[in-house]
Amino acid sequence: MGLIAASDALTSTGLAAFLVSLGLLLGLARIMGELARRYRQPQVLGEILAGVVLGPTLLAQFWPQAHLMLFPEQGPVAIAQEGFFQLGVAFLLLVAGLEVDLSSVWRQGKAAMSVSVTGILFPFVIGFGLAWLAPSLLGKDPAGELLPFALFVGIAMSITALPVIAKILIDLNMFKSDTGMLVMSAAMVNDLVGWLGFALVMATLHDQGGNVAPTILYTVVFAIGILTVGRWAANRILPFVQAHSQWPGGVMGFVLVTALLCGAMTEWIGIHAIFGAFLAGVAIGDSNHLRERTRDTIHQFITNIFAPVFFASIGLRVNFVEAFDPLIVLVVLVVAIVGKVGGCYLGAVWAGLSKRESWATGFGMSARGAMEIILGQLARQAQLITDELFVAIVIMALATSMLSGPMMQKLLRQRQRRRLKDFLAERQIILHPEARTLESILRELSSRAAEITGLPAGRILDAVLQREQIMHTGLPGGLAVPHARLDDLAKPCVVIARHPDGIDFDSPDGQPARLISLLLTPSQQPETQLELLDLVVRIFGQPTIRDRLLNAANGTEFLAILNQVESSGPNDLTPNANHVEA
Amino acid sequence: MGLIAASDALTSTGLAAFLVSLGLLLGLARIMGELARRYRQPQVLGEILAGVVLGPTLLAQFWPQAHLMLFPEQGPVAIAQEGFFQLGVAFLLLVAGLEVDLSSVWRQGKAAMSVSVTGILFPFVIGFGLAWLAPSLLGKDPAGELLPFALFVGIAMSITALPVIAKILIDLNMFKSDTGMLVMSAAMVNDLVGWLGFALVMATLHDQGGNVAPTILYTVVFAIGILTVGRWAANRILPFVQAHSQWPGGVMGFVLVTALLCGAMTEWIGIHAIFGAFLAGVAIGDSNHLRERTRDTIHQFITNIFAPVFFASIGLRVNFVEAFDPLIVLVVLVVAIVGKVGGCYLGAVWAGLSKRESWATGFGMSARGAMEIILGQLARQAQLITDELFVAIVIMALATSMLSGPMMQKLLRQRQRRRLKDFLAERQIILHPEARTLESILRELSSRAAEITGLPAGRILDAVLQREQIMHTGLPGGLAVPHARLDDLAKPCVVIARHPDGIDFDSPDGQPARLISLLLTPSQQPETQLELLDLVVRIFGQPTIRDRLLNAANGTEFLAILNQVESSGPNDLTPNANHVEA
Repeated sequence: MGLIAASDALTSTGLAAFLVSLGLLLGLARIMGELARRYRQPQVLGEILAGVVLGPTLLAQFWPQAHLMLFPEQGPVAIAQEGFFQLGVAFLLLVAGLEVDLSSVWRQGKAAMSVSVTGILFPFVIGFGLAWLAPSLLGKDPAGELLPFALFVGIAMSITALPVIAKILIDLNMFKSDTGMLVMSAAMVNDLVGWLGFALVMATLHDQGGNVAPTILYTVVFAIGILTVGRWAANRILPFVQAHSQWPGGVMGFVLVTALLCGAMTEWIGIHAIFGAFLAGVAIGDSNHLRERTRDTIHQFITNIFAPVFFASIGLRVNFVEAFDPLIVLVVLVVAIVGKVGGCYLGAVWAGLSKRESWATGFGMSARGAMEIILGQLARQAQLITDELFVAIVIMALATSMLSGPMMQKLLRQRQRRRLKDFLAERQIILHPEARTLESILRELSSRAAEITGLPAGRILDAVLQREQIMHTGLPGGLAVPHARLDDLAKPCVVIARHPDGIDFDSPDGQPARLISLLLTPSQQPETQLELLDLVVRIFGQPTIRDRLLNAANGTEFLAILNQVESSGPNDLTPNANHVEA
Repeated sequence: MGLIAASDALTSTGLAAFLVSLGLLLGLARIMGELARRYRQPQVLGEILAGVVLGPTLLAQFWPQAHLMLFPEQGPVAIAQEGFFQLGVAFLLLVAGLEVDLSSVWRQGKAAMSVSVTGILFPFVIGFGLAWLAPSLLGKDPAGELLPFALFVGIAMSITALPVIAKILIDLNMFKSDTGMLVMSAAMVNDLVGWLGFALVMATLHDQGGNVAPTILYTVVFAIGILTVGRWAANRILPFVQAHSQWPGGVMGFVLVTALLCGAMTEWIGIHAIFGAFLAGVAIGDSNHLRERTRDTIHQFITNIFAPVFFASIGLRVNFVEAFDPLIVLVVLVVAIVGKVGGCYLGAVWAGLSKRESWATGFGMSARGAMEIILGQLARQAQLITDELFVAIVIMALATSMLSGPMMQKLLRQRQRRRLKDFLAERQIILHPEARTLESILRELSSRAAEITGLPAGRILDAVLQREQIMHTGLPGGLAVPHARLDDLAKPCVVIARHPDGIDFDSPDGQPARLISLLLTPSQQPETQLELLDLVVRIFGQPTIRDRLLNAANGTEFLAILNQVESSGPNDLTPNANHVEA
């Protein structure tokens, strides 16, 4: 671009570096996030690792020139990036705020309050106490003030990540269960209190030595104002905007402008912009005038574009190898888990839950996720904590999030919702079968299944044919589901054949089967067969989806359609569990 | 935020200013854009005016301190803003590129080629000739080089704004007509050639005095590479991404990363980032693997958030009052209209269109819209043109866009698509009528209509009752449409009553009418009555919409629902005419 080169303007080279750096951060964060998901790990783990790869930990070691050009410490490129990151985190907190549903918290009443109060107090006291009594254990810089440091550690231990928890509950199919709603409500209160508490720590820090009272006063007045008057006003203004502006552009504009201005307001007060954006989200999200589609567009763009870039930028901040201190990591991890799980367990037991449910609630609430990382990042920038403690907090946030789901699953014996796509790969789809008869298509399917499972094709075919002899497995709508249970099968195997003309499977509606799904399951897991049958019928039973699958050009497209149809759920660790009922 | 204050870092005050400035730009741009639309003017007009209000033209005159704080000329805040604006315009061109459908251009064949060739050559020659022979007429800085200046003026005259044209065609309900498809195809070719031409001008400029050949070579190689290999690769990669990543996040990430990296590539070549982003859009948009929903999310966020901020930033650049030179404005306007309309007219006549259609094609192609403004902005930043010519180009872009629709409408005698909401205001909705009988509800509706039209209530009621006597106006699904034509009515008047229990209007399905729409139309416009009847039946006839309307809490919400239901169309001048079939 033709901007005149000046040390304090974005030159053409600077703009190119800015665009490349964003492209690399976004691209790598998305790829590594997807890889993390594939191995059932939190997506944010992959996103942060992308930053670690591009940051001082790796890229700067092996190719310092490139690192210096793409991610300079200061100057125009660094400023433009910083502006984008800050915007990203403020928007991210807006989306998190939109998820808080104050009215559902009131409905949960006493139990939610009990869990959230003990879930905050208990870890706070432990964290604060430890930081106060043994600050060096947490790598505190002796020069810094003790009180804000101890307050921060207390709050860091007591924070919860609403979006992670929502995602875990959805995955376990218990979002709408009693325990699920209780955990969600408690987490909302927890989030609100935790962030306000941190805002106050920031306030004390901001006015170091000076008079901290005005900042705290402004913060409290602003928060109460937004959550009362602001909430009322948002509920009034939204229908007006919807009635008198283009849709959904008008509403989207209103939501983001509110977040930007509230964010600027809190930044001006002396706490961080994210608080204002978060509160704006809470105030607006509570209105039932905000339509799902608007929410969704904001949500998708922010969680899929701004969030990955922001989390990758976390990885850029420090050298994760250099700043890794095993003792600090261990201390933070133990205190965080014991404090949170213990505190919530007590609250849940007092509220009358069973022990098993109480433990599950504790582990559910213990997931720290993205929120903790944002908090740690702010504290590090404010020089409240060292790089070592920051790294420990990031690791703790990831570890607790990874622990939460499996523990709840174990305690409540809930099973993860599975998708048909999880059972399929391209070689399990036969788009152009040679077979023209029932027996030959079963043979073709069985021999493909044999390649995949390693079992002899004859055994598979025999078992399947035996089942067909009892009654053919044709279903209405051109489907067929030949199936068998096999003793020595390690895990379920699905093979799908698409037949252009269809093959007669004696279906009740007389239609020949054009989508033939062979379902093989281990004998020891009788419920898996039912689960697979249910998935196949639910998805292939929809005429529009079936038509698209019948027209898919190749296996990749076939999988893409399934992926899209089944992708109603949100990401892992970013605040995106909004559309849970979808 | 706790960043250490440094002259080259974004301080807490700086971040607050950055957020406030974005909030103000976005908020005011959206409000003034909506106002412009209300008066049937291009939305981008309002958006630029928002920048004029906040920029040197107004705010700086009346409150210089605020202007200096929010929009400093240099320093961290200016850099962060510049980064966001540049990102916005690159993304905007990405969306514009996504709209270009190369395959439909091939289908249009000869006629489209003929119109686009003359539509480029004719205005280019006139513009280039004038700039070459009488540069002072266009306010050229005598110190600058003549050739790039004349080339720029030629290209500026020959550019077309695809999105504006699409929008106008949709409004005239002729997007899918022969003329419509011809204009669209010609505009696509025009866009592609125009932008490439401008890229070459930028290239010559970049290497002032040096060797320009490599830059031009890189540009051409890059463009051809993206449009061939890149297009092929995108079509291959998209299904893969869709099959193996979350949906729609994975695809969105892929699209934006590609745009960012291609943008950086062209910026590095020495032309602007927007070319790369535009070409990336063309390559990706052509793939039929890109799903509508993904496209829509990207589209909505970019056109509703990034675009308004960017266009407002145009208003920030110069003092529009000071740099207004009536002579230059006049010259630019005349040359732009004569060149483009004339050139396209000739091409269309040669291709065998009727004279009337050819003129319509000419005026259709003449709309310059947002694209011309972006181009002018780049030329101004490159110091290729003066502020005076820049202002003239902005005015020309707006004026041609405002002229285009009405002229096509007049020439082709097409009528604008109207929406039910255009006939309604809150006082025309009676949510809690007192009436319990057919006659009393008609009286209540008539007296409200009397207040609005100024006609005596008795006359209205008589006419409506007379119509009801022939046959009652109940329709299936709980609707009724009492109506009358009145001699001295200036314009159509609609009043809608919602009745909780319903009133018997003798409907075919025996249901009482719960949504009763009184339709009064001028006797001279017999077709308006049919149009209104059609609108009412089409909208209220849908059970889901009817249910939402029956449950609306107040008039504003009632209107909001109608607005949302009818808002399938895109904005005015920003590149957003993608979802035309919606």
